[in-house]
Amino acid sequence: MDDGSNTLRVLIATDCHLGYMEKDEVRRFDSFEAFDEICSLAAQKQVDFLLLGGDLFHENKPSRSTLVKTIEILRRHCLGDQPVQFQVVSDQTVNFLNRFGHVNYEDPHFNVGLPVFTIHGNHDDPAGVDNLSAIDILSACNLVNYFGKMDLGSSGVGQITLYPILIRKGTTTVALYGLGNIRDERLNRMFQTPHAVQWIRPQDQDGCSVSDWFNILVLHQNRIKTNPKNAINEHFLPRFLDFIVWGHEHECLVDPQEVPGMGFHITQPGSSVATSLIDGEAKPKHVLLLEIKGSQYRPTKIPLKSVRPFEYADVVLKDEPDIDPNDQASVIEHLDTVVRNLIEKSKKTAVSKSELKLPLVRIKVDYSGFTTINPQRFGQKYVGKVANPQDILIFSKAAKKRQTLGEKIDDSERLRPEELNQQNIEALVAESNLKMEILPVNDLDIALHDFVNKDDKMAFYSCLKYNLEETRNKLNTETDKLKIEEEELILKVGECMQA
Amino acid sequence: MDDGSNTLRVLIATDCHLGYMEKDEVRRFDSFEAFDEICSLAAQKQVDFLLLGGDLFHENKPSRSTLVKTIEILRRHCLGDQPVQFQVVSDQTVNFLNRFGHVNYEDPHFNVGLPVFTIHGNHDDPAGVDNLSAIDILSACNLVNYFGKMDLGSSGVGQITLYPILIRKGTTTVALYGLGNIRDERLNRMFQTPHAVQWIRPQDQDGCSVSDWFNILVLHQNRIKTNPKNAINEHFLPRFLDFIVWGHEHECLVDPQEVPGMGFHITQPGSSVATSLIDGEAKPKHVLLLEIKGSQYRPTKIPLKSVRPFEYADVVLKDEPDIDPNDQASVIEHLDTVVRNLIEKSKKTAVSKSELKLPLVRIKVDYSGFTTINPQRFGQKYVGKVANPQDILIFSKAAKKRQTLGEKIDDSERLRPEELNQQNIEALVAESNLKMEILPVNDLDIALHDFVNKDDKMAFYSCLKYNLEETRNKLNTETDKLKIEEEELILKVGECMQA
Repeated sequence: MDDGSNTLRVLIATDCHLGYMEKDEVRRFDSFEAFDEICSLAAQKQVDFLLLGGDLFHENKPSRSTLVKTIEILRRHCLGDQPVQFQVVSDQTVNFLNRFGHVNYEDPHFNVGLPVFTIHGNHDDPAGVDNLSAIDILSACNLVNYFGKMDLGSSGVGQITLYPILIRKGTTTVALYGLGNIRDERLNRMFQTPHAVQWIRPQDQDGCSVSDWFNILVLHQNRIKTNPKNAINEHFLPRFLDFIVWGHEHECLVDPQEVPGMGFHITQPGSSVATSLIDGEAKPKHVLLLEIKGSQYRPTKIPLKSVRPFEYADVVLKDEPDIDPNDQASVIEHLDTVVRNLIEKSKKTAVSKSELKLPLVRIKVDYSGFTTINPQRFGQKYVGKVANPQDILIFSKAAKKRQTLGEKIDDSERLRPEELNQQNIEALVAESNLKMEILPVNDLDIALHDFVNKDDKMAFYSCLKYNLEETRNKLNTETDKLKIEEEELILKVGECMQA
Repeated sequence: MDDGSNTLRVLIATDCHLGYMEKDEVRRFDSFEAFDEICSLAAQKQVDFLLLGGDLFHENKPSRSTLVKTIEILRRHCLGDQPVQFQVVSDQTVNFLNRFGHVNYEDPHFNVGLPVFTIHGNHDDPAGVDNLSAIDILSACNLVNYFGKMDLGSSGVGQITLYPILIRKGTTTVALYGLGNIRDERLNRMFQTPHAVQWIRPQDQDGCSVSDWFNILVLHQNRIKTNPKNAINEHFLPRFLDFIVWGHEHECLVDPQEVPGMGFHITQPGSSVATSLIDGEAKPKHVLLLEIKGSQYRPTKIPLKSVRPFEYADVVLKDEPDIDPNDQASVIEHLDTVVRNLIEKSKKTAVSKSELKLPLVRIKVDYSGFTTINPQRFGQKYVGKVANPQDILIFSKAAKKRQTLGEKIDDSERLRPEELNQQNIEALVAESNLKMEILPVNDLDIALHDFVNKDDKMAFYSCLKYNLEETRNKLNTETDKLKIEEEELILKVGECMQA
């Protein structure tokens, strides 16, 4: 008979984006309500701990209001009398890089009943002279165990070492590796550089050999491989891993998927709040209950009930028989019907208290052969009926058409503001047909984001310095480590670019 | 024999300005070291609690680094096994307006050994839609007891009610009133409006009559009465008070001073870090140990040893016989001698570890009849010798000279940037000889400050709205509560201004 004393129970969630839309009248509490539900589920399912995959906060510098709400939720759920029934047997000062250097439930001055382990994401990554994340504030308060923070060092190439948190519950032993977000391009390069990423394996100890450990990795990176340099390939990861928690991707693909030939499964829980109104975010949101016993595990997905309903539809205007291209009223009439149907659908699928919430509604309208209509004006009649009246409609043209060479693009198309805002540098570079050989567009994008959102005055300088060093290193390798002078180097760079 | 069980021991400090100069290479840790010393003293003197008078934080939105350091200090000193030997017998949900609504040491999930009670100051006052102070973050973490936060209401005049924290230790009973900073002009008006400030007295209970309570008030307002509208007059305060802790004023006047005819004493502990290099801040910094037994108390001042030495001198160039007005070198030579003497003096008076710290040195130079020299250039030779090489010298002209009517002021004098920066609106209004009758200059100053430093987009609107309402109320009273129409009102305002 199994009394559960050898089974480690973990609730897994990610991308809670606390503080998202905190100034929106309708949606301001969405992120907090979902996180509150996640913490309640952890208590209800009597898990040993809650594991989060990054982007707990939406903003790098969360507002006072967000910090206070977050601390309140954690304090209400994580402190309590329920006994913690597992041990951390690794060197805690290596795992937890705060001033106190121990797992939070071992602090004698706090009564922690539900430990939370989290890495940082790209939204709440460490910054500033002290390299502090907003999560460090929660860690200083002893409300979370922040791990997976790497010292990227000052070397040109960069090297990271992953020390697992070693967890023991009865006969079950788990090595939990955390890798907080690193710029995808940088991590990508590291994974392709020999010895740049070091995985520390548990030592044989207490009659427990290295093969007895169940190995989990939690990371927060791009997974979709549209641009391989800008994402992490699953095949980069070591085969000794058993289970991977993939944060950052907001689409809920919570059922563990096997990666053929690698011997591990990946769960992608997805965000607990929709931060972009795309198809992937419209799927029902879940978290994962993972029960581990020895080398066996059982995943159980649990739907989140507090999440605001979100209905998504694609409409191709020219395929709709009831629309007359010369009559804008017929376009609006058709789209109104779609919106009404989506609102009805959201009411039918709604469960429990979430049915009280106004739904998010998004229609992606392929308007090829038509002119656009004003989305704000269109949405006015849905105030009080949907949560996002101002941006129900988003207009696009069929991808194929755009790729046609030589096609004349009229100015109205160029000036759709939403897309320009969202991929500023990339769009500008593409439009001007620039070749960016030394400074990758993505790095510039990140530098711009850090400069604006994180007050990182050195963002562009760092970007420049890093990429110049990278180029220099590459050239050094290519010239067979010949010592070359600065001026020669510039010439070499030129040659390199020609190649 | 007194075993101390009836004596309440309180350590009193104020204006710690955590995070002040956090980006300065030399001074970045000063505010934290002083606060750490204060907390250590509280433990060493085995006080019942630490009482702070506001401006715990220097910035309204403290940086991550400041929040983490502050939480670390509080966590190290305030959590522990020493028993708390007093009780809070008032309605805690009224005293402590956070979600948890109780004094922090009564929370069963925290082991609080040193309770901290604090009000907010003008630097860390509540703001934003949720009316949250940075102190609310510490309160949510259960590390401090934040009190004295008033609901100013939406009424034109404003009314506040002070509910004391009722503290009992053995036979000693203390009513602790807190009044977090309110704009001086506003509070001033309230004090002069009948019934606008309500003081709730303890009820007779448990054989303890209202006269048995020792009444303490802690507030954070201007005390210096250069402009009476812009400061709080000690005589506004009710006579039932026994002891007042006055925050905000940075000069250390820690020895309790009696206010004749009022029956109470005032302690002004002063800041624990110098935030402006004026004479008042150069006095040795202290905190106060207050021991209360029944209606008797004993104040003991304790010097802070970690505070950076600060030496101040006034120099009047024309009174110095060794200076030749036609020889700038002799001016510099003289000032160099003064600086060297101040550095020497700081070394002699230094005690314990503070002697390792570079001193702050400030010379206020009356340069009447001379030209100024460049303070930055002058300070270069003192890098590594003083903490503030860039602003050792500050130039001024004798006050009397400036007031002479009709005297021609040359442009070089008008353009001294330091003073202009610090009193922008006031200086501009004065210079243009404007009469500001409805909008007080001070209110505009505060609105500008809030707009810039607190992102308060409504600052000017609120200032305008409030003052128009004030004027309207005043007019209503003056016209004997006659119902007058909007247009009439404008005429009345005009008349009023003429009077």
